[in-house]
Amino acid sequence: MNERYSIGVDLGATNLRIAAYCGGTEFLDTISMPTRLNEGRDCVVRDMCDAIQSLTEKNYGGRALEGIGIGTPGPLELPEGILRLPPNLPRWDGFNLRQAVETKLGRPVEIEGDANVAALAEQKLGAGREYGVDSLCVLTLGSGVGSGLILDGEIWHGSTGMGGEGGHIVVNSGGSAPCGCGGNGCLEQYASASAVVRIARQHMDGAAPATSREVALLARAGDARAALVFEDVGRSLAIGLTGLINTLNLPLYLLGGGVSQAWDLFAPSMFRELSSRSYVYRLTQPDNVGAAKFEPHKTNIMTAQLGSTAGLLGACLLPFQQKAPRSGLREGSLAHQ
Amino acid sequence: MNERYSIGVDLGATNLRIAAYCGGTEFLDTISMPTRLNEGRDCVVRDMCDAIQSLTEKNYGGRALEGIGIGTPGPLELPEGILRLPPNLPRWDGFNLRQAVETKLGRPVEIEGDANVAALAEQKLGAGREYGVDSLCVLTLGSGVGSGLILDGEIWHGSTGMGGEGGHIVVNSGGSAPCGCGGNGCLEQYASASAVVRIARQHMDGAAPATSREVALLARAGDARAALVFEDVGRSLAIGLTGLINTLNLPLYLLGGGVSQAWDLFAPSMFRELSSRSYVYRLTQPDNVGAAKFEPHKTNIMTAQLGSTAGLLGACLLPFQQKAPRSGLREGSLAHQ
Repeated sequence: MNERYSIGVDLGATNLRIAAYCGGTEFLDTISMPTRLNEGRDCVVRDMCDAIQSLTEKNYGGRALEGIGIGTPGPLELPEGILRLPPNLPRWDGFNLRQAVETKLGRPVEIEGDANVAALAEQKLGAGREYGVDSLCVLTLGSGVGSGLILDGEIWHGSTGMGGEGGHIVVNSGGSAPCGCGGNGCLEQYASASAVVRIARQHMDGAAPATSREVALLARAGDARAALVFEDVGRSLAIGLTGLINTLNLPLYLLGGGVSQAWDLFAPSMFRELSSRSYVYRLTQPDNVGAAKFEPHKTNIMTAQLGSTAGLLGACLLPFQQKAPRSGLREGSLAHQ
Repeated sequence: MNERYSIGVDLGATNLRIAAYCGGTEFLDTISMPTRLNEGRDCVVRDMCDAIQSLTEKNYGGRALEGIGIGTPGPLELPEGILRLPPNLPRWDGFNLRQAVETKLGRPVEIEGDANVAALAEQKLGAGREYGVDSLCVLTLGSGVGSGLILDGEIWHGSTGMGGEGGHIVVNSGGSAPCGCGGNGCLEQYASASAVVRIARQHMDGAAPATSREVALLARAGDARAALVFEDVGRSLAIGLTGLINTLNLPLYLLGGGVSQAWDLFAPSMFRELSSRSYVYRLTQPDNVGAAKFEPHKTNIMTAQLGSTAGLLGACLLPFQQKAPRSGLREGSLAHQ
């Protein structure tokens, strides 16, 4: 436990969560509310700042506040903290979230993409900690495919804060499924929960269920067409992972989010396709592929450990991270801190 | 100019080049010879070590030897320095090149993939230096597509030394062109010199020339089918770059190698496709796309500056690099130094 505490914010399109934190995987305190997007961004910022304020006024055993971290849907332009055409926060394009919050609170905050903070939490408190791994990539297979990259223990922002978007690697160059990012053929269109439903409709016509969870249940009940959906998902994941593995050669790739619970259904085709596609994978695959057992000096692909609190934990961790500029962020980028 | 000098080796499948170096982009001394692959690897190692020895015996103004760096075709397993199924060095699979050279010389050497050292040279002495950029990716469009990644001024090895293989990102998931890596649909099969010739054969039947340079000459002379070949190359490069840009958000991507001289022919379709595929690119594209002018805080894609000496320069730079372990290489990885 730290002598100091932090406050973290997980700004989601549906829920807004705020927590006080001083170490470990538990919170000192949490506040949760719906994100009132329809009331406008000023209202959301007010809700967020009121909750932060209420936590700063409590006395957590006399601990001093280390800082405030916010995880937000991206893309996010850093160091400024400006949202750029965020698909999940319509009408927030160009909004300087950092400035709005700092003005309202009268103190600096740290802001970061939601997938990046989730990956940070997995590295510091989840699988990365368990296996002693400094560098990893998390792919969150939710309604979209989020992705965060931790290199040598730090978030890889890229030069303008937009690094880590593995969900938009092209996995089907001839694909016609348009992506929210404006492209098409992106991993997000082939491995997200909404992709599972769309692909199920293609394989099953009118019989397709409305959620990816139901498609998985059908597959486990023996429906061959539903099983095919997840074989497709596994192959698409493998194509995306091939790019990541051949380029980055990380020791650990974690799959999180709702679709990752169908691991039993997509993992066999994913590992098969990976072996045939990625020579770096072939040269470094674990002796026991697909077993939930980490092998050092290999390419391990496993499910994420922290579940839906990863984003909030990661936001709470931000103020405790090293402040030296790196990750290609341009000079002076952390001058505000 | 340094007070000390280094010796660098560029081990290619065709040529073996050795140089003494003390700074800048010029060498103190160079030795060049054919790589006698047919005589066996012991012969190649002997040729290499004899040349290194002859350079260590010279007196370069009384300078002391800082160290010896070797760039080799990969994949290379680090920290050991073992070659793993290197497509360009048949029969060298499993060969511990580091050990063989160190035993023969009786002193430690640093060993690194050839594309990685070329990228290091571009960052320290080429485009990276000119534009003040710490992080960049080089794609070398030669007989294959090599790729090296420099993050925060250092080679990104990945956890087992096999990072940076951007040439094997899948750009055509339905593609049937088998790749030397054992996969198919890799960028290497769509943007290398041999790919240009193969695609030309598809577009031009019997009229296709035998080299990528001739295809380019035909395209510039107005042959529409030859022009189409490079439009294809541009689109494939864009799909590969989309993965790199969305994941890494680097300020600079450099294209080198013979095919990069056809920049005028493939760049228009590459930039068009990139704008439609990569939202990180759209959000960060230079005001003047395709101009040979670096724009800070943008995603710049340009031709490499150092040409065919990049690999040898990078090998010479290796001994001058910081020795602290990083880039995800496992603990103790640099213990031999």
